[in-house]
Amino acid sequence: MIIDELINRIDNRQCPIVMGLDPVISKIPTHIREEARNHFGNTLEGAAEACFAFNRELIEAVHTLIPAVKLQMACYECYDQWGIDVFKRTVALCRSHDLTVIDDSKRNDIGSTAELYAIAHLGQPPLIEGLGSEKKADFLTINPFLGRDSILPFIEQCKSSDKGLFVLARTSNPSAGEYQDALIDGVPLYLKVAQFIAETAESWKGESGYSPMGAVVGATWPREMSVLREAMPCSYFLMPGYGAQGATSDDAVHAFKKDGYGALINSSRAICYAYLEPRFREGGLDEEGFARAASKAVIGMRDDLLRSLIQADKLPENW
Amino acid sequence: MIIDELINRIDNRQCPIVMGLDPVISKIPTHIREEARNHFGNTLEGAAEACFAFNRELIEAVHTLIPAVKLQMACYECYDQWGIDVFKRTVALCRSHDLTVIDDSKRNDIGSTAELYAIAHLGQPPLIEGLGSEKKADFLTINPFLGRDSILPFIEQCKSSDKGLFVLARTSNPSAGEYQDALIDGVPLYLKVAQFIAETAESWKGESGYSPMGAVVGATWPREMSVLREAMPCSYFLMPGYGAQGATSDDAVHAFKKDGYGALINSSRAICYAYLEPRFREGGLDEEGFARAASKAVIGMRDDLLRSLIQADKLPENW
Repeated sequence: MIIDELINRIDNRQCPIVMGLDPVISKIPTHIREEARNHFGNTLEGAAEACFAFNRELIEAVHTLIPAVKLQMACYECYDQWGIDVFKRTVALCRSHDLTVIDDSKRNDIGSTAELYAIAHLGQPPLIEGLGSEKKADFLTINPFLGRDSILPFIEQCKSSDKGLFVLARTSNPSAGEYQDALIDGVPLYLKVAQFIAETAESWKGESGYSPMGAVVGATWPREMSVLREAMPCSYFLMPGYGAQGATSDDAVHAFKKDGYGALINSSRAICYAYLEPRFREGGLDEEGFARAASKAVIGMRDDLLRSLIQADKLPENW
Repeated sequence: MIIDELINRIDNRQCPIVMGLDPVISKIPTHIREEARNHFGNTLEGAAEACFAFNRELIEAVHTLIPAVKLQMACYECYDQWGIDVFKRTVALCRSHDLTVIDDSKRNDIGSTAELYAIAHLGQPPLIEGLGSEKKADFLTINPFLGRDSILPFIEQCKSSDKGLFVLARTSNPSAGEYQDALIDGVPLYLKVAQFIAETAESWKGESGYSPMGAVVGATWPREMSVLREAMPCSYFLMPGYGAQGATSDDAVHAFKKDGYGALINSSRAICYAYLEPRFREGGLDEEGFARAASKAVIGMRDDLLRSLIQADKLPENW
């Protein structure tokens, strides 16, 4: 099952870190942008190709260190059909480098459309006759606002094609609580979503005991994180908010279960754009060394996280 | 302002109906599918091109009858880069036929990513140097689950490029209430969202007195609709749920203000696939007459709606 594959990769790297592949053209090193412009012009295609070249070097630099990558769809959608093409090529490249791929699209709509989104991101699209080939991302993030009849089609799709979900429960942004803390029979909405995730996960588990039915839980909210950890014992948490958004490894460690599993810590900016930080510049890495700066950032982040896991007595037994 | 343009088109057609351009390959007439297969093969591209040919005939048949179209992004996203290309060409075709275009993508994410989505759907994407050309849809649907810091970037983008939004308030699907009815200080979430929309709309209005800050309100929930109508006096409602989802014109009429404006009734299946209904088949229209069946369906729907508006004493004065 896809969740067991993910856990194998986490064990193999002894590292629960996800790199967010969120290319932003203005922050891509000059030499990559120049080359893309020479080949493809100052066009949407040129910008998209610069993103691909940037992604490729990053993937090659860190694939032995991390188990998974998360692709923020907005970064690709900006570039229309060229962005979608680069998204797909990035997914394929990640898979050929033994990485689990999370499609971070936060999609949803009413039931019949949810079904189409599930097909668009995880399934086989209907052709004029028969079906097209299967989409290759392993996990998709979805938004629960429309209720369970909008979530069920994604679950069905995942069960039939061995994929997984991370449903937004409590997001990492400052106004996360504005609507997510609303009460249903005295229980906060985010916890109601968690209870639905937990029910689903209970009957859909891999050999690892974990389910492909996961949750997005912001690393920036330690109190809610603990409540959610208890509510979803079989679910993996995808945790944004580490680094640029302010959460530390000591915050994030509360999302791990006692066995040392159960959470994936995402970092995008602090890895991909590590080369922009003074400490890397001063260490002699220039723009061309951006991928090495990224791998150093991953290693530093892993050290922090493992230290926090050890302190919390949560380091996996076989690491 | 974009909202005034929409209202002008509504007046011009004396019709507040939006056609949902939601091409589903299995329901596209055989002759169109065959032709696309002959030209483009049984591929993603072929399926996407069949969708485009289908859209084109529909647009040509109904553009003088309706003010606006809504494109369900999931239908296009299924076909990867070819789908996105067809989406853009459909948008351009609609605009050249004097139609307001609603991009129904229901996007959202945390603030910095929301900004990217706003650019991807309504703005000018950043190129290697400078900015690309502006996206052409007029309105975008967005999901409020992440709170106001995820909505503000869309508002900023709209203000700077004269676009509009429809924010999900109470959706049309059966489980809409599951999370949308959660309480915040005793007020349902959907109403809290509406209050935020209303505050924003109050200081952002066109000459018509209406705001480009609108709401998605399911036509399937008459009680909530009345509450929401009162809460958002300056906002247009985009209303799914008519026809295939069960709402009637007598239901929908409660969403209109006394002046006869304030709501756009969306119908997708009941227009696009009208040709599949026995009454059109029996009336002598075959598959090849699908676009004529669509225009007949629009006319019938308009008759129903105007009758209900008259009964409710809500027909616009100058119609």
